[in-house]
Amino acid sequence: MTETQGNWLSEQELNTARSRLPIVYVDAVPVRTDDLGVIIEIGLLLRASADGEVNREIVSGRVLYGERVRDALLRHLEKDLGPLALPQIPASSQPFTIVEYFPNPDITGFHDPRQHAVSLAYIVPVEGDCEPSHDALDLVWLRPDEVLSPTVAAELSPAHEKVIKHALAHSGRPV
Amino acid sequence: MTETQGNWLSEQELNTARSRLPIVYVDAVPVRTDDLGVIIEIGLLLRASADGEVNREIVSGRVLYGERVRDALLRHLEKDLGPLALPQIPASSQPFTIVEYFPNPDITGFHDPRQHAVSLAYIVPVEGDCEPSHDALDLVWLRPDEVLSPTVAAELSPAHEKVIKHALAHSGRPV
Amino acid sequence: MTETQGNWLSEQELNTARSRLPIVYVDAVPVRTDDLGVIIEIGLLLRASADGEVNREIVSGRVLYGERVRDALLRHLEKDLGPLALPQIPASSQPFTIVEYFPNPDITGFHDPRQHAVSLAYIVPVEGDCEPSHDALDLVWLRPDEVLSPTVAAELSPAHEKVIKHALAHSGRPV
Amino acid sequence: MTETQGNWLSEQELNTARSRLPIVYVDAVPVRTDDLGVIIEIGLLLRASADGEVNREIVSGRVLYGERVRDALLRHLEKDLGPLALPQIPASSQPFTIVEYFPNPDITGFHDPRQHAVSLAYIVPVEGDCEPSHDALDLVWLRPDEVLSPTVAAELSPAHEKVIKHALAHSGRPV
Repeated sequence: MTETQGNWLSEQELNTARSRLPIVYVDAVPVRTDDLGVIIEIGLLLRASADGEVNREIVSGRVLYGERVRDALLRHLEKDLGPLALPQIPASSQPFTIVEYFPNPDITGFHDPRQHAVSLAYIVPVEGDCEPSHDALDLVWLRPDEVLSPTVAAELSPAHEKVIKHALAHSGRPV
Repeated sequence: MTETQGNWLSEQELNTARSRLPIVYVDAVPVRTDDLGVIIEIGLLLRASADGEVNREIVSGRVLYGERVRDALLRHLEKDLGPLALPQIPASSQPFTIVEYFPNPDITGFHDPRQHAVSLAYIVPVEGDCEPSHDALDLVWLRPDEVLSPTVAAELSPAHEKVIKHALAHSGRPV
Repeated sequence: MTETQGNWLSEQELNTARSRLPIVYVDAVPVRTDDLGVIIEIGLLLRASADGEVNREIVSGRVLYGERVRDALLRHLEKDLGPLALPQIPASSQPFTIVEYFPNPDITGFHDPRQHAVSLAYIVPVEGDCEPSHDALDLVWLRPDEVLSPTVAAELSPAHEKVIKHALAHSGRPV
Repeated sequence: MTETQGNWLSEQELNTARSRLPIVYVDAVPVRTDDLGVIIEIGLLLRASADGEVNREIVSGRVLYGERVRDALLRHLEKDLGPLALPQIPASSQPFTIVEYFPNPDITGFHDPRQHAVSLAYIVPVEGDCEPSHDALDLVWLRPDEVLSPTVAAELSPAHEKVIKHALAHSGRPV
């Protein structure tokens, strides 16, 4: 698996690929669940944007060459939530949805100015101690009703807000 | 939730209902997974049948009145695997498949002589210490290739063998 | 299959069962799709309630003893949309979600005062000519944005509104 | 959508990308279904390999830059089954499984010597008249039991055989 770890694709090569091929992504909604698997809290990363705004995000990132989807899920979750997060990668590889991001915001309503990405989305319970990664300001755990409140929702990207709503619907919770 | 715990439906009433209505069931495939969510082992209960044969079974049981599907999953898993099994009930309520059991074995190929049952099937990782319930001879954990070996498969009911194969396919493992 | 057609369970017996066992249901969201499978319109039945209000509903009904889930889907769709509706029952038996209705509205947020029902929910494209069943005032086809408008949503039961929103999210459409 | 149609990525550039990035694919199992959505027949393409062997295949191909998954499904199905095939692209974008193909056959058991591909797999009912594409010898429709017979299975790639078995399991048919 060494080839998946190295930074073998230069930034410029990646940018070229991004303008020519859809990129495989994973989106993970980190959650705390109770004994019954009910979602109690959702983990959101806070990042400062270039223009000083605070954005809230779920875990998201691309799948590298040679890497299984579950390898990519674990790697991104540990990178964003820390090495002691103990994410429970799902036994099933069926995503609860796929999210198709396009530079053109009108195609699916999921917008990514950088690339065309096809993202496999999973709900991932996290059991361990989390600490935000170095490129994040903070990591907060919020109840589903808090996440869906106008204040918080306004700080989520529209795409991530939709993925979270879909994840909650999928868990059986009315949205 | 007291009404779901009591034995309020007599055995005779339940038998009458079973001859007139489809019964809601849950099937749970108990698994041990690694850090990546890969299924390492499957838990099978050994039970002695009336004619002295040994049968291997996954966890299966009906949903009671007033009980959520996730309540029923936790109840049956703790009943069969013990109170310290720590099953990780899935956050998503979407079953990986439904299994339709009929008294007539020709309708779907899933046979239950007692009843028409519609069972929601889930893969459930189990993290704690398991002990077989009092009505089981033993609980064994086997690797997927062991479960699918002719010797073990011959001791599974055909229906449970199919559910396990489907669960393994669903996890991304070729079957 | 004769036993599934007859009215063999008296109204009183059914009421008794409904107070003691969860009932197996199917929910079907009838849709018109384009060549690409994109949902163009959703079919809603209009019914007059006892107090004169107009309610909008998706197709929903119980699974009878001896009946497969796909038999029940076809039966309810043809009953509500007419014999020429040509519903495309999904090849996959995995529901996109399960909906758990309870007499107590607080358990899951999906409320049915009559019963505890576990409903398997499917999106069903309809290709033929539809006519509302005799117990409906009308059948209307509305675009997704129309269905989600406050005026229409107010005439949907909260449970059916949630199922429709979830179906649209599942189809890849942001909700 | 002009950019998705043109052969804008040279063969050499595509080969370079294939050695560095996972490629997004779709796998479609073409089926004939009855009124109840039960799979009656599966469509298999016959192709002659370089060494003169006959191989049977399902529909499979990559997703182009700028193309939605449902666009890619329709394009590949019409290319392989002809313009009058009338494939019923699913309303739901959730694949029934994902298939991870690797040049190394040991990682997932799904092998593709050319590339690392992440394929979204769908069951697609086909209602129209099919004719095999120019690069196929023939298109045959076989019953599920015929497809799973040793003779036919031996002519399927191991990966496609597994995808078909999984699709049949998913449809509720015991495999």
